[in-house]
Amino acid sequence: MKIIVDAMGGDNAPGAVVRGALDACKNHGIPVLLVGRTEEILRCVEEGGEKTLPKGMEIRDAREVVEICDDPATAFKMKKDSSLTVGLNLLKEGAGDAFVSAGSTGALLAGATLVVKRIRGIRRAAMGPVIPVFGGRAILCDCGANAECTPEYLLQFAYLGSFYAKRVLKVEKPRVALLNIGAEESKGDTLRKETHALLKAAGEAGRIHYIGSIEGNDAMMGGADVIVADGFSGNVFLKTVEGAARFMMKELKKAFYTNARTKLGALLVKKELGEMKKLMDPSEVGGTVFLGISKPVIKAHGSSDARAITNAILRAAEYAGSGLIEDVERSIDAMKVERPREKA
Amino acid sequence: MKIIVDAMGGDNAPGAVVRGALDACKNHGIPVLLVGRTEEILRCVEEGGEKTLPKGMEIRDAREVVEICDDPATAFKMKKDSSLTVGLNLLKEGAGDAFVSAGSTGALLAGATLVVKRIRGIRRAAMGPVIPVFGGRAILCDCGANAECTPEYLLQFAYLGSFYAKRVLKVEKPRVALLNIGAEESKGDTLRKETHALLKAAGEAGRIHYIGSIEGNDAMMGGADVIVADGFSGNVFLKTVEGAARFMMKELKKAFYTNARTKLGALLVKKELGEMKKLMDPSEVGGTVFLGISKPVIKAHGSSDARAITNAILRAAEYAGSGLIEDVERSIDAMKVERPREKA
Repeated sequence: MKIIVDAMGGDNAPGAVVRGALDACKNHGIPVLLVGRTEEILRCVEEGGEKTLPKGMEIRDAREVVEICDDPATAFKMKKDSSLTVGLNLLKEGAGDAFVSAGSTGALLAGATLVVKRIRGIRRAAMGPVIPVFGGRAILCDCGANAECTPEYLLQFAYLGSFYAKRVLKVEKPRVALLNIGAEESKGDTLRKETHALLKAAGEAGRIHYIGSIEGNDAMMGGADVIVADGFSGNVFLKTVEGAARFMMKELKKAFYTNARTKLGALLVKKELGEMKKLMDPSEVGGTVFLGISKPVIKAHGSSDARAITNAILRAAEYAGSGLIEDVERSIDAMKVERPREKA
Repeated sequence: MKIIVDAMGGDNAPGAVVRGALDACKNHGIPVLLVGRTEEILRCVEEGGEKTLPKGMEIRDAREVVEICDDPATAFKMKKDSSLTVGLNLLKEGAGDAFVSAGSTGALLAGATLVVKRIRGIRRAAMGPVIPVFGGRAILCDCGANAECTPEYLLQFAYLGSFYAKRVLKVEKPRVALLNIGAEESKGDTLRKETHALLKAAGEAGRIHYIGSIEGNDAMMGGADVIVADGFSGNVFLKTVEGAARFMMKELKKAFYTNARTKLGALLVKKELGEMKKLMDPSEVGGTVFLGISKPVIKAHGSSDARAITNAILRAAEYAGSGLIEDVERSIDAMKVERPREKA
């Protein structure tokens, strides 16, 4: 097992990335191959308290960096010597088992699709963040890679999410639900109605455990392990959870700062509130997997600190050892729709 | 000014509805015309502590009740003597200035559209709930009446929301934003891109104050006064806010119940937390307006208690006196798209 890490991607690169990689390597025993400007990486290693590269850590030099201002669709091609492109090629060639980057989401997705390629038969790769829900967690698939979807894409997202929940989140029989407006069969737009028919058939064939449609409120209350969505509404869901949580934390802070009495109250629950805040913290989750790519690619949050990078590397190792991609390859025939309806 | 109220609609009807109407009538001076089974209404009036109908309160008998199990599309037609159908007809005939119902959303929307009718030139009526956002409130339009939309519908929703924010929420220059995935112009699906062009043109013509796209997180942080969405993603947004808030309150409760120390902390902020909980409480908001209908129709939450009904009646009175519908009628030419693209 070896995880390839884009040392130059993200707001806090390379410092936070190298520190996170050091932690994963030294304290969790995960071999890491860092890709980027060697001298900068070595300087960060030194700043991290190491005189030389620790055992299990390697560097592969790459001189260019994909910037946020670069066009996502072409950046990996235009910058052939970027840490992102070199890293993806290393993954393709088998120099490591997974690739982690905190760089541009669009560039990483385009690069993963065109360099590493999708699993044969998969129409579109999807982004699958794991989100906290009441009583546990759930995987949302897709959360923004595909703004426009066909029923077949959504069927495939359902399988991908279900395999992930089973293999990585260790849910024995993941409850798969379609994000919709209203739980009744008749609810939703054409895309939802057509997808519902496909998911129902897959459920009846015993391939996934489809429990029907779910609304955002029930999804947050833990009503499903896999939330299937087109990239547009999935992204709205994800960003809204983030916004509503931030809104609540701000209101809570306001409540606590009202007067001396409330401030004392705040002091008494400080520790527990910290735990609660952590629940909603993206750096705790560590990264979003790109499902449907033929090898594991993990996007860490752009603002990742060292801890977030460590978590993303841990998740990458979990994913790489899970057998998920083999699951998909074995099931791919059932994941196709005879006559796919592609949107214009 | 007189508000027509569906006495039989909602989970707690007629008791809660009649109590709410009594409060609006007696304590806020708003004349109310209750529609429903006279004997039941009178009994509730009596239980509300009144021997006879108070001044300003009238009853119009209607024998039938639209139930949740009735088909929404046809209920108002099949049950011609229902409180919903009779109430909508009274509104159409001018027996009152607005109609409030806590009954079936679908039946109310279908009835409002077919009995009271849309404002001439408006393609679809939209549901416009007012939601709490950090530092204030915003109107979301649409939140579920139209799962499938054209750019023209969204353009009209933007105008409707903007007029509402100006006239009812008293925002001088409402910031109108399109709910999207990413704030950049190039983001989103075809519907968003085409709508963006229309909204931009309306903004440049000085008709609305269009500030571009907005994501769910920024919307919750108060980034816009009017959030324009198709009914599908608008509903996902609304339900997710509800779910995330509930999730946070439950986690908060868990944090507070950890031990004796945290329980004391909870006691010290009890009052302020109550205020915070109120923020997210639908009964405080009171109802959702149906924008684009030629007269004010307000949907109160199905589980409305008396206070929620009172608030919905107050909102209906505000709306009826606002001049909003006249605004729309005056601007309707600018709200049309030359060659509307209707979806199949």
